[in-house]
Amino acid sequence: MKVGFIGLGIMGKPMSINLINSGYELVVLKRDNEATSALEKLGAVVAESPKAVAEIADVVITMLPDSPEVKDVVLGVKGIIKSGKSGLSVIDMSSISPIISREIFGELEKVGMDILDAPVSGGEPKAIDGTLSVMVGGKEEVYKKYYDLIKAMAGSVVRVGETGAGNIAKLCNQIIVALNISAVSEALILAQKAGVSPELVYNAIRGGLAGSTVLDAKAPLIMDRKFSPGFRISLHIKDLKNVLETSHTLGIPLPLSASVMEMMQAINADGLANEDHCSLVKYYEKITNVVVGH
Amino acid sequence: MKVGFIGLGIMGKPMSINLINSGYELVVLKRDNEATSALEKLGAVVAESPKAVAEIADVVITMLPDSPEVKDVVLGVKGIIKSGKSGLSVIDMSSISPIISREIFGELEKVGMDILDAPVSGGEPKAIDGTLSVMVGGKEEVYKKYYDLIKAMAGSVVRVGETGAGNIAKLCNQIIVALNISAVSEALILAQKAGVSPELVYNAIRGGLAGSTVLDAKAPLIMDRKFSPGFRISLHIKDLKNVLETSHTLGIPLPLSASVMEMMQAINADGLANEDHCSLVKYYEKITNVVVGH
Repeated sequence: MKVGFIGLGIMGKPMSINLINSGYELVVLKRDNEATSALEKLGAVVAESPKAVAEIADVVITMLPDSPEVKDVVLGVKGIIKSGKSGLSVIDMSSISPIISREIFGELEKVGMDILDAPVSGGEPKAIDGTLSVMVGGKEEVYKKYYDLIKAMAGSVVRVGETGAGNIAKLCNQIIVALNISAVSEALILAQKAGVSPELVYNAIRGGLAGSTVLDAKAPLIMDRKFSPGFRISLHIKDLKNVLETSHTLGIPLPLSASVMEMMQAINADGLANEDHCSLVKYYEKITNVVVGH
Repeated sequence: MKVGFIGLGIMGKPMSINLINSGYELVVLKRDNEATSALEKLGAVVAESPKAVAEIADVVITMLPDSPEVKDVVLGVKGIIKSGKSGLSVIDMSSISPIISREIFGELEKVGMDILDAPVSGGEPKAIDGTLSVMVGGKEEVYKKYYDLIKAMAGSVVRVGETGAGNIAKLCNQIIVALNISAVSEALILAQKAGVSPELVYNAIRGGLAGSTVLDAKAPLIMDRKFSPGFRISLHIKDLKNVLETSHTLGIPLPLSASVMEMMQAINADGLANEDHCSLVKYYEKITNVVVGH
């Protein structure tokens, strides 16, 4: 199977290498960068445009920063859709707005193409290990057809519904992660200000109902003042933008997600957008004049 | 060792029975209720007032609803302090304001008495099983002296600092639990409104960074529409009152804890204060006209 892969970034590069290692023939977009050269050396064919990638490939995977880039690569003047290949499928593994996923699907459907939205969680380490978690939206038969292809990059692959559902699940994930980081921050700030060791509090409560993956992953980093990413504030801002655009398009309020978005904007205003999302604690530290430590 | 036990409620009754089963002699307060009769039948001595309990006992455990009740039982006109027994220790296992814990300690210290604040988490089932988690504040030597006594009711006992630290840890726990329930609610509401199965989303994200004890404990209850407690909204309101009184006394803002407090007030205004705290989702359901289901 010839697989087009567009978007050889921090995530896309190791994901595409895992596909080559699993025996897939790859077609990548011509770009003057290290990742493209590396893939070419591993045997990938290089094509001039997304349209050209689609003309060679049986299926095209996209792994891009946000909705506008995906829209351009799929629907743009040199986009995948211009290949006119009825029956072609696009697997968009970017984390984008589910509304845009549905919009793109509508356009592709008109020319007989399919789309799966298949955003991932797990970050660079799991992209390298091939153990990403993938949440898939789209037709069941398309999902089944490409399950093995996706599984070659993933530890778990779950179909959650029709087109857009994968990105809805990803946004739900990002809502919970953002709010759980706020929860941990408010708790650690209170302990610190009250003169009680945040570390002892963490140890006392982590085994109970307050326990979470965020608590175990982020509380030690916060207390150690380790804010290198991980998952950047800038990316979580992008996800919360998509959360709020989606919820507002659907006509519902999500008040705490909106509050955390504003807090992350404050972190961004302080020039810390490239730090890990647990830098959210610095918003609290600024408004309380407290610094969380050991 | 003669152990006074004041507060034979839903939690206190099984806790005191576990002490009797571990061989401690109990002294309880005279009350015309089933719990007191039950303890008397099991061999507990009954005394007329907190002062009288303290006169008979070597150490007095209190397990009461909130700060005013503890203050009255310890410092009131017929309170424990009136026994005048220098060297007596009070172990307050109620969840109260850490500021009041410190205030009570100050008064007891003047007459040579000690206090441990030792709030618990785990609820009635763990009180019955004797597997509560106990967070202890107070002097290390007092903690060591009564460790075995507390352990007879608990699965884990952790000293987190000086007087008040136990209640600070408990409030940190309750902040995280409240905000994590909000996080789960906002995510499930978004999925439901977007027409994506909350259950499939839950299954897709629970193993990743969004995973939490609250997610696993409460998302299924919310989807099944099971809101019987568990831990009541009214009790979480009490804890958030103590959170905000403490943070405001310390002079710091905790904006999301304050927001969730207001949401729980709305649940209370709807007459649902006796439902489980995951009824918080009903606040979101009301403001979005969405009902989370399967």
